[in-house]
Amino acid sequence: MTDTNLTAVLRTKGDLRLEETDIPQPKKGEVQLAIHSVGICGSDVKYWKDGAIGHFVVKKPMILGHETSGTVSALGEGVTNLKVGDRVAVEPGVPCRVCDLCKEGLYNLCPDVDFCATPPGHGSLRRYYCHAADFCYKLPDHVSQEEGALLEPFSVGLHACRRAGIQPGSSVLISGAGPIGLMSLVSAKAMGASDVCVTDISSARLEFAMAMGATHTLLIEQADRVEDLAVKVKERLGCMPSVTVECSGAESGLQLGIIATRPGGVVAAIGHGLSSVGIPLVLAVAKEIDIRGCFRYCNDYQLALKLVATGQVNIKPLITHRFTLGQTLDAFEMAKSGKAVKCMIRCARD
Amino acid sequence: MTDTNLTAVLRTKGDLRLEETDIPQPKKGEVQLAIHSVGICGSDVKYWKDGAIGHFVVKKPMILGHETSGTVSALGEGVTNLKVGDRVAVEPGVPCRVCDLCKEGLYNLCPDVDFCATPPGHGSLRRYYCHAADFCYKLPDHVSQEEGALLEPFSVGLHACRRAGIQPGSSVLISGAGPIGLMSLVSAKAMGASDVCVTDISSARLEFAMAMGATHTLLIEQADRVEDLAVKVKERLGCMPSVTVECSGAESGLQLGIIATRPGGVVAAIGHGLSSVGIPLVLAVAKEIDIRGCFRYCNDYQLALKLVATGQVNIKPLITHRFTLGQTLDAFEMAKSGKAVKCMIRCARD
Amino acid sequence: MTDTNLTAVLRTKGDLRLEETDIPQPKKGEVQLAIHSVGICGSDVKYWKDGAIGHFVVKKPMILGHETSGTVSALGEGVTNLKVGDRVAVEPGVPCRVCDLCKEGLYNLCPDVDFCATPPGHGSLRRYYCHAADFCYKLPDHVSQEEGALLEPFSVGLHACRRAGIQPGSSVLISGAGPIGLMSLVSAKAMGASDVCVTDISSARLEFAMAMGATHTLLIEQADRVEDLAVKVKERLGCMPSVTVECSGAESGLQLGIIATRPGGVVAAIGHGLSSVGIPLVLAVAKEIDIRGCFRYCNDYQLALKLVATGQVNIKPLITHRFTLGQTLDAFEMAKSGKAVKCMIRCARD
Amino acid sequence: MTDTNLTAVLRTKGDLRLEETDIPQPKKGEVQLAIHSVGICGSDVKYWKDGAIGHFVVKKPMILGHETSGTVSALGEGVTNLKVGDRVAVEPGVPCRVCDLCKEGLYNLCPDVDFCATPPGHGSLRRYYCHAADFCYKLPDHVSQEEGALLEPFSVGLHACRRAGIQPGSSVLISGAGPIGLMSLVSAKAMGASDVCVTDISSARLEFAMAMGATHTLLIEQADRVEDLAVKVKERLGCMPSVTVECSGAESGLQLGIIATRPGGVVAAIGHGLSSVGIPLVLAVAKEIDIRGCFRYCNDYQLALKLVATGQVNIKPLITHRFTLGQTLDAFEMAKSGKAVKCMIRCARD
Repeated sequence: MTDTNLTAVLRTKGDLRLEETDIPQPKKGEVQLAIHSVGICGSDVKYWKDGAIGHFVVKKPMILGHETSGTVSALGEGVTNLKVGDRVAVEPGVPCRVCDLCKEGLYNLCPDVDFCATPPGHGSLRRYYCHAADFCYKLPDHVSQEEGALLEPFSVGLHACRRAGIQPGSSVLISGAGPIGLMSLVSAKAMGASDVCVTDISSARLEFAMAMGATHTLLIEQADRVEDLAVKVKERLGCMPSVTVECSGAESGLQLGIIATRPGGVVAAIGHGLSSVGIPLVLAVAKEIDIRGCFRYCNDYQLALKLVATGQVNIKPLITHRFTLGQTLDAFEMAKSGKAVKCMIRCARD
Repeated sequence: MTDTNLTAVLRTKGDLRLEETDIPQPKKGEVQLAIHSVGICGSDVKYWKDGAIGHFVVKKPMILGHETSGTVSALGEGVTNLKVGDRVAVEPGVPCRVCDLCKEGLYNLCPDVDFCATPPGHGSLRRYYCHAADFCYKLPDHVSQEEGALLEPFSVGLHACRRAGIQPGSSVLISGAGPIGLMSLVSAKAMGASDVCVTDISSARLEFAMAMGATHTLLIEQADRVEDLAVKVKERLGCMPSVTVECSGAESGLQLGIIATRPGGVVAAIGHGLSSVGIPLVLAVAKEIDIRGCFRYCNDYQLALKLVATGQVNIKPLITHRFTLGQTLDAFEMAKSGKAVKCMIRCARD
Repeated sequence: MTDTNLTAVLRTKGDLRLEETDIPQPKKGEVQLAIHSVGICGSDVKYWKDGAIGHFVVKKPMILGHETSGTVSALGEGVTNLKVGDRVAVEPGVPCRVCDLCKEGLYNLCPDVDFCATPPGHGSLRRYYCHAADFCYKLPDHVSQEEGALLEPFSVGLHACRRAGIQPGSSVLISGAGPIGLMSLVSAKAMGASDVCVTDISSARLEFAMAMGATHTLLIEQADRVEDLAVKVKERLGCMPSVTVECSGAESGLQLGIIATRPGGVVAAIGHGLSSVGIPLVLAVAKEIDIRGCFRYCNDYQLALKLVATGQVNIKPLITHRFTLGQTLDAFEMAKSGKAVKCMIRCARD
Repeated sequence: MTDTNLTAVLRTKGDLRLEETDIPQPKKGEVQLAIHSVGICGSDVKYWKDGAIGHFVVKKPMILGHETSGTVSALGEGVTNLKVGDRVAVEPGVPCRVCDLCKEGLYNLCPDVDFCATPPGHGSLRRYYCHAADFCYKLPDHVSQEEGALLEPFSVGLHACRRAGIQPGSSVLISGAGPIGLMSLVSAKAMGASDVCVTDISSARLEFAMAMGATHTLLIEQADRVEDLAVKVKERLGCMPSVTVECSGAESGLQLGIIATRPGGVVAAIGHGLSSVGIPLVLAVAKEIDIRGCFRYCNDYQLALKLVATGQVNIKPLITHRFTLGQTLDAFEMAKSGKAVKCMIRCARD
């Protein structure tokens, strides 16, 4: 391997640079990947802008990127599930495999998970990167590397929708039409939801949601009372939704979910903008609402890939802007602007 | 009401006649229905041919028919959810609403359920029939009465698939390509199953299954060993199915399900031809297979209707033969022949 | 029946009087009960003091009382499960039996439930009262009428603990050592919880909790930070609890639950003092906490009675103060004082 | 370490010998254990007598024993959860941690599990043995090593009862009063079951079950019809059990479970004597019985240990016969005789 390894390093808050780094060699059970595509996530932007998310603080230079696909370029010891040349999607978190949570099938909650671009773990926004082979999923020939990278946000939405127990024929409310909201929409539809109402504060995003399969939308304005919004949700859906997937991270989104969802229903909470959020607890109790925190994904990647590979879902339209690795800073500026749905960076040379 | 009430009465085993009966008047909470369409179910044929199914024995004349749609022609006291002229699908079992099972949300298991055309309960194969209003579901204008009648077998398949917990992106095996197998196929696809392999002993039925959305089929021949069939299922699906829906009622169908299904998976058993069935228990235990008996439906009709109304599923192709109420005996002969998928009888006058 | 019917009527906020009312006669499916014991619940006190709980407002005179036992004194039409002379516990809510929630086995969420002493429904604090026979549970001879009345708050705790999925051998946190907290404690222990830590702001109540089976307690003081309390909970239990049952209704109780509970765990919320409660949503999401609203009970009474009848639990010690029906006002004053755990009113004449 | 390692080696079917083997050294993540106690399981006896269980065949010499406790005598690289001198219970199966089943929290179904004394894996019936440290559970001082060894069969019963979803206050049927039946009984009671009826063909075993907490027993005789037995079960319990735990492995046990269990209930199948078992499928379908295969344990050991450590359960009485390692052949003869409930071998020198 005589190549070089151009890499997007966040040296410190606000200081994102392209640098050459060493090409990593795969350890036992790992594969080395020639990275093809990396999508920019809101968390990448936030680390760049703020240097931290919650108690995760960038204390030393960190490579960004965790929505990843690539081509296997070398095999570590003992790897048998993949071969050089395989195109793969990368599930970015590798858990400890030893703790109680891992053993219980909740590996997304493993306290010792090594997760791409969550401090102190380095990410994949570079030419070469190594990853546990069993967390790389081989893409069929007709599934693109971009789709492989999109499996990451898709798995977030799918995980929440599965955890929410969306039923075929049911009605669903999705708060927020950003990438995760859209992926939740796609997931809910794939699970058979008949009516999906998406809310957002941007009419452009709601149009995007309609194009992605939403059956109804609700534009939220600053002055709206959540009680009134809940009435409008019911009017649009013809009934109270049995599930709300909260993707906005806004306080009003969670409140709307609790008020709008039918008794005995579920509010799946993915979004989390504020550390403290006021909820109408009396109502949540009297309606026996389940508010289920949803974090990343767990045993979802293979299902997500299958849904893409069969054509049951089409997630490609989410990519609105494309960049090369050399244009990484432009990509981040675009992502920060809020004008893009998903910025995709091509790391592979042509 | 000066109409007459032509009615298909099974007087005794083998003796099915069309007779005039009294037009029933709706009691409190009931609606009177001008029946439009009634599908013939295997159980109707079996009562006609054998006079009994298990411990349900036809001891006195019984009106047949339970796959029903019609138009509300009169309202009983206190009915507010429907009005005269509404076109409705009829969920044929009305439970006691008082027993523990009803209170637990398992009303399909209510020991005192009053179920159409299950002795001693009369069925709906006539011009006029009365039913509990809350078990009649209003059809949107664009959903046909035939589709309304088909909601009954569709709900059977949907119930089993929901009870089996079919996941989006998963692989499913369906044993048997009769009406219930096909409805399970449609249900599994609606829930997001990516690959569905259907088995049958008839290649014609398998072709029908392919037309209804099966991704793979497996023709079963007399001499096949179930272990070999399980290997073929795995080859077709590319993996062991996580769920098998057993609709054939054949002993080998249940055996195949237990052998073919992946560890930790579910075998949903709807079919039940034989009273005693030999199962490979050692394997079921070592693989922690859940064998889940599935009986009729419970809280499924509204979801089924929604899936039809939105166009997420198309169940109309199941109707292969149509008859008028006056042609009831011909319809039963056709149903008995095994050449039809679903025979539909039109009870309404034009 | 030549008896009279002394009755505790809340004429309006603050105005609770004993009056003679007509002796009601049982309708179809009902029994007439000679009431024996009625416990005073916090909600009874709140209606008396405030005239309302949330959107439930006392707009016309209402009879109080819903923790009830009595002796069957007459049978309505069609009642076969009970006979005159049977001693019964009364489950106070009778649902509509027709709506979707009733059919789904969530009858506690029925919007048309008729619930004792929830406006506009009258309660049972009187000599004679009629109730649906299938919501009356016959007490074995060795179970006292007082225990029968206590099944109501016990069922609240049991419902929450069942809904929380408490596992044998697990560790549980219970916020609040009032009657519902104590009943949750008893329930958690009955389900096999090994360690139960109970919190309260009163050391006397914590002593009571220890006597009822708590393995650890934590006194909460005004100035305590919830993060510090969570550390103390972990120290006491030797691990993070897998379930928290929030019975205090205090904002800090719910916050403590979310912080203290292990990832993937459940916070069952019964208490609901404030309409809006601030929760650490980021943490709830990152830990995938399920916050499950728990309302009253549903299919719990028979299990609760069994646990009492076998001696698996002993709930009698909760009764700290006893009164006759004639002393109702004294009983309410005592209940309001906060000095009692449970005040029990004897309605039966000797 | 200058000790020797006396070891119980099954050289081939019927040929069990005590031999000296090398003292194994702990690999990374492992601990070396000075084994204290090893219980004899039916599977140990079966390998000795028959040389095989199902498709697991003893093809080369294999060390027996998998119900194990011991004292940590050396630490492998990286072990931090234990220290030399710790007394531990040993969970005998170490899964691959990489396959889908491991990731889903079903590690007991891992196809690559390394399980003590399941061919080709060696067991623990020797002086020294090495095991993955994270599958060793430290015993509190007051829990004996014998109890530590008993956690293995206890975990089998607990796993089945948890998987069956036994509810507090419920009624349970347990088929078979061997060690697993008794451990299921103990588990069911710990989970709050109020009434537990145990069946067996031996009245002596039923007496043992009563002493261990059964509330009812039913002696099964050769000529009994399962339908009649189901009636007797209902008479004893006063209702149909909501759960049956089948531990006998007899065909009639599974049949009884399906017939006796209430509609919507669960039959947890642990026992598996025959490869093919005839079940009344029509009934299982019409009652929507869940037949759940239960295999070993998964995330159960810590809960089992907690239940023992708190005194919530007392499993020590199961040990009816004790032997030294030198008396291993006598122990196996006794186990084979059927006269013992549990034979415990002490491997530690005094």
